[in-house]
Amino acid sequence: MKRKNLNIGLFGFGCVGYGLYEVLEKTPGLKANIKRICVKDKSKQRQLPSEHFTFDKNDILNDGEINTVVELIDDADAAFEIVKTALQKGKAVVTANKKMIAEHFDELLQLQKEYNVPLLYEAACCASIPIIRNLEEYYDNDLLESIEGIVNGSTNYILTKTSEEHISYAEALLEAQQKGYAESNPIMDTGGFDAKYKLLILIAHAFGVVAKPDEIYNIGIDRLGELELNYAKEKGLSIKLIAFAEKTSEGKINAFVLPKFIQKSDKLFSVNDVFNGVKTKSYFSDVQFFVGKGAGAYPTASAVLSDISALSYDYQYEYKKLNQNEILESDKNILLKVFLRHDLEYVSEFKRCFNSIQESYRNHESGYIIGIISLANLKIIAERNYADTSIVLFDIAKSNTNETIKKRKQEYAFN
Amino acid sequence: MKRKNLNIGLFGFGCVGYGLYEVLEKTPGLKANIKRICVKDKSKQRQLPSEHFTFDKNDILNDGEINTVVELIDDADAAFEIVKTALQKGKAVVTANKKMIAEHFDELLQLQKEYNVPLLYEAACCASIPIIRNLEEYYDNDLLESIEGIVNGSTNYILTKTSEEHISYAEALLEAQQKGYAESNPIMDTGGFDAKYKLLILIAHAFGVVAKPDEIYNIGIDRLGELELNYAKEKGLSIKLIAFAEKTSEGKINAFVLPKFIQKSDKLFSVNDVFNGVKTKSYFSDVQFFVGKGAGAYPTASAVLSDISALSYDYQYEYKKLNQNEILESDKNILLKVFLRHDLEYVSEFKRCFNSIQESYRNHESGYIIGIISLANLKIIAERNYADTSIVLFDIAKSNTNETIKKRKQEYAFN
Repeated sequence: MKRKNLNIGLFGFGCVGYGLYEVLEKTPGLKANIKRICVKDKSKQRQLPSEHFTFDKNDILNDGEINTVVELIDDADAAFEIVKTALQKGKAVVTANKKMIAEHFDELLQLQKEYNVPLLYEAACCASIPIIRNLEEYYDNDLLESIEGIVNGSTNYILTKTSEEHISYAEALLEAQQKGYAESNPIMDTGGFDAKYKLLILIAHAFGVVAKPDEIYNIGIDRLGELELNYAKEKGLSIKLIAFAEKTSEGKINAFVLPKFIQKSDKLFSVNDVFNGVKTKSYFSDVQFFVGKGAGAYPTASAVLSDISALSYDYQYEYKKLNQNEILESDKNILLKVFLRHDLEYVSEFKRCFNSIQESYRNHESGYIIGIISLANLKIIAERNYADTSIVLFDIAKSNTNETIKKRKQEYAFN
Repeated sequence: MKRKNLNIGLFGFGCVGYGLYEVLEKTPGLKANIKRICVKDKSKQRQLPSEHFTFDKNDILNDGEINTVVELIDDADAAFEIVKTALQKGKAVVTANKKMIAEHFDELLQLQKEYNVPLLYEAACCASIPIIRNLEEYYDNDLLESIEGIVNGSTNYILTKTSEEHISYAEALLEAQQKGYAESNPIMDTGGFDAKYKLLILIAHAFGVVAKPDEIYNIGIDRLGELELNYAKEKGLSIKLIAFAEKTSEGKINAFVLPKFIQKSDKLFSVNDVFNGVKTKSYFSDVQFFVGKGAGAYPTASAVLSDISALSYDYQYEYKKLNQNEILESDKNILLKVFLRHDLEYVSEFKRCFNSIQESYRNHESGYIIGIISLANLKIIAERNYADTSIVLFDIAKSNTNETIKKRKQEYAFN
């Protein structure tokens, strides 16, 4: 296997970009050099001489010597234009922009096919955890049953602080913002949108479903309150924001992002702070579990680097499972056991949304219901935006996984 | 990237071989078919018609149409002869035989280079955990500081049983043997040899050191007794058989296999039963942690399958770190904090072996010493084979890791 020389045009020169620059300088074994760096702000002081930089994206996109574009900017729309043009010009692309990928997945697949160029984005999912590559390479022929993970570092930091230091959600968020783990407008993280974009990318590689962002339901952690935090504490559970997808016995894909009570025996229980953790379950390799830092300049640079390394031998994703024509399960068929905290005014309406109720509780100002509800009804409750509700998942109520396993075990019976 | 057609000659047709056969049959997307299977026992009933089989290895090795050999037999010597001839004939090879690889690593490297053919062996280390591929691909340019793991499933099963069900080591071993997790002659597992072979493979990919098996010191779990098991229980620790390697501040590699007390906060604490877990620590991606089933037909077949899949696009290990010319640290420079259980007769001799002693205890029949000792002296104690001693590691006493990090942080200072 001969490694290809990579001549890189880099977009964006924040911490990740600069880290990447340094490592590439120090690893001559990988024949990759950054020829040009495109940045936006003309007035900013930078750590390299000005001849490295350009402010015009076409200086990179029209440069025939540049065969690889690394895109590390924040703006998802601008990023898409860059990535699209680069692919059209036959340049391989590495990006870390999950929002851009999730919003343009179909088009990006089409571009890769049409121009036969690789687009790699390991850094877009769980930063340093090589989950996409492992799904592509390790689960490509395996019978994957489910994938479940903590995929957003900043919400995990906030939840860890809330639970370990018994501070309020607002205080923990403020601390996360002060440490640079959360944006000043943190809704992308705390609302579960960032997790959803990642899940959307993961299910394409895991199950071959290309979904639109609004087809995957997400509830974040921004509504969590005392009642459910105390409930978790009393029962020895922790609350984590979970991205989940499984293949049902009907062969459909059930995917969502929700806060979930995690048992102590669950491998995700001890994934704390800015760490991410992803569990996969498959017929042959059973449960596998990947843990690593899910955010930060260095972990992200490390994932970008490994994509660049892979490009040097012409690696590209194969998306083999896309041919399986999987589809998403409908919301009314997804039954969940949840904890719903509610104010007292609408309690009877809430109760009617449940298929069955196992526990209910009320004090002078609020209450909770524990029971089985369809995702469709859960959405109705959450979207009507009642003054003060919060939802935490216990588990899939009607998990078809056992049936699925049984069915597959029969198919694969080594008799 | 065009996938190559693979025409496979398979050696061995136990559970893993048969599982592999079935999955390949069911995944036509991967252009790989098993042309011929070589087995030893002529009288054994098999699950496929006899025309699939041969009893003569040359029917595969001399078949010009077979471009890939998958070796899944037990006998390390016979396996080496097969692998060697296959490589010499330009056939790509996949093997799961850690003992064979560890004992012939130099020669296998030489053969790969001379005949320019890939030899892949993901299944040889921690079965379903894709640790070798991740070391090759994800840590190839990164600054890896240490690797530490539970890499042997059967000892982990025994230790889990001993600690959770409070049964004796002998009972747990018997149970493991009855369940097929341990061989009737279990010394390869319980003596830490299997773990050592895996560590030897891991450090070649992690740090570029090709060691001989007798250069890596291993103590197993077969001498563990009540005193240290109770000590662990009282302190809330667990005992795990650990394979460990780190780069010292002098740039040398310190590697060994020892039973170790694991704190509850350590990610390895909750890796139980036949699961394996591997922690890596590196400058850019920080701590990463991989967990999966480390033994069994399916997890192993799953790893073999992913190697076959990789061969279809001509993947081969690059062993880039071999050029770094790393060497092993000398035993006298490796200082360990250990727990030594001993009988009462030689206690003064034992004490003289320690650099410093923090605790000592004795009752009417035995005692223990907790203190700092060099690996060289530890070997002397263990190898003299005193009637009843047992050694459990607390930690590296003089860990240079902090200094190393500091030094590298300076080198890579993003100022």
